[in-house]
Amino acid sequence: MGDLETLKKEAALRAVALVESGMRVGLGTGSTAKYAIEELGRRLAAGELRDIVGVATSEASEALAREVGVPVQPLDPRPLDLAIDGADEIDPDLNLIKGLGGALLREKLTEVQARRLVIIADHTKLVTRLGEKAPLPVEITRFGFLSTVERLRALVPGGRLRQPGAQPYVTDNGNYIYDAQLPAAFEPLELERQLKGTLGVVETGFFLGMADVAFVATPEGVREIRRG
Amino acid sequence: MGDLETLKKEAALRAVALVESGMRVGLGTGSTAKYAIEELGRRLAAGELRDIVGVATSEASEALAREVGVPVQPLDPRPLDLAIDGADEIDPDLNLIKGLGGALLREKLTEVQARRLVIIADHTKLVTRLGEKAPLPVEITRFGFLSTVERLRALVPGGRLRQPGAQPYVTDNGNYIYDAQLPAAFEPLELERQLKGTLGVVETGFFLGMADVAFVATPEGVREIRRG
Repeated sequence: MGDLETLKKEAALRAVALVESGMRVGLGTGSTAKYAIEELGRRLAAGELRDIVGVATSEASEALAREVGVPVQPLDPRPLDLAIDGADEIDPDLNLIKGLGGALLREKLTEVQARRLVIIADHTKLVTRLGEKAPLPVEITRFGFLSTVERLRALVPGGRLRQPGAQPYVTDNGNYIYDAQLPAAFEPLELERQLKGTLGVVETGFFLGMADVAFVATPEGVREIRRG
Repeated sequence: MGDLETLKKEAALRAVALVESGMRVGLGTGSTAKYAIEELGRRLAAGELRDIVGVATSEASEALAREVGVPVQPLDPRPLDLAIDGADEIDPDLNLIKGLGGALLREKLTEVQARRLVIIADHTKLVTRLGEKAPLPVEITRFGFLSTVERLRALVPGGRLRQPGAQPYVTDNGNYIYDAQLPAAFEPLELERQLKGTLGVVETGFFLGMADVAFVATPEGVREIRRG
C-alpha cells in the first residue's frame, strides 16, 4: 500500500499505460502530473513508446518534459489523443475543480482539445460536491480587478484575491486569481456560465464534462472511475 | 455645418456640457474622445468646473488628460458619475460596437461603472444593425489563440486575427484581437453571451444596453439620441 506519494505515482503509471506510440499527449501541471511526465520519459527511453509529442500546460511541465526526453510542441488547433493531469477536486460525475496551482487557463485551453482527458489524483481530492474542500479559482484581468471582485462577490459571496505576499499572485498570462468559496448548493453549469460571463473574468477553474476517466490513489490501491 | 472634425468637436462639447463640478468622469479613447478631454481641461482652466476626477480608459487618454490639466485617478469600485467615449457603430437602440482602437476591455470595465455613458460620434457611425460596416473586435488570450479562433469561427464564420504587420496586434492587457464579421441577422445579447462564454475569449466589443445618450455630429448639426 505505501504512502500517498507512492500511491500518486501508481495512479500516474496507470494513466501513462494508456499512451500509445504516435500519440499527441497533453502534459498537465503539478505534483501528480510530474510523475506522469517522468513515466512518459522512462517509457520512451526504454523503447516501449516512440513518436510521442507532448503539449505542455505550463513552463514548468515543458521544462520537465524536455529534461526527461519527451519532445514538446506548442499547442496548435489539432486534437490531442490524450491529456493527463491532476485535479484539486473530483466529484462523482468526474466534474473537476482545477487551478490551485495557477495554471487553469492553459490547462483548460489544452485539455479541451484532448479526445480523452485522464485525471490522476489521490483520494483526498474526491468530494461529494465541488467546493467542499477547495475554493474555485477564477482568473481575472488586472485592470479594474477590485470591481471585478465585487461583481464576483455578488454571484458567490465568499472568497478572496489570491495574494501570497505583498502583491497579488500573477498567472502565466499576466492575470490575477480570485479564489471563490462555493455555496453549499449550486448548479455547476449555470454557475460556470454566470462566472465566465462576468465582465473582467477570463476563465474559471470548473472543468465540467471534460474528464473521461480518473485514476485515484487510495490506501486500498488505485481506483478507476469512469464518467457515467 | 463645417467639416467632420468640427462636427465631432461640437458633439464632444455637448457631452462635456453635462459634466458638473465634483463629478468623477470616465475618459474614453480615440479621436473623438480626445476632443472631450481637451474641452474638460479647458472648462477646468476657465474656472467653469472644479473638483473633477478623470478615470482614463487607456494610457494615451491618461497622458492627454494630465497634459490638459484634468486630474486622473485609477479605476476603483466607486461609481463614475459620467463617462464620455466614442463608438465604432451605434444602432437605433444605442447598442454599440467598440474596440477598433484596441481599448475595448478597459473601456468596458470603466464604463460599466458609469451612472451615465455618453457617446460622441459622427454620423458615419450610425447603423441600422450592428456589424453593418465594422467588424466586432473580440479580445482573446494569446496562449492557444489558433484554437480560440477556430471556436469563434464556429459561431461567426467570417473574421480574422488583427495583424497590422508581421506580428498580431497586442492589447494593453497582453492579448490578441479577433475581428469578427457579423452575419446579416443575429440576436446581439445571445451572440454576446455565446462569444464571451467561449474558452479563450476575454471580452467582446459589444456594448449592449450601456449607453444612455449619444451626441452625433451630422451635416445638419449635432443630433441627440436617447435610449428608448
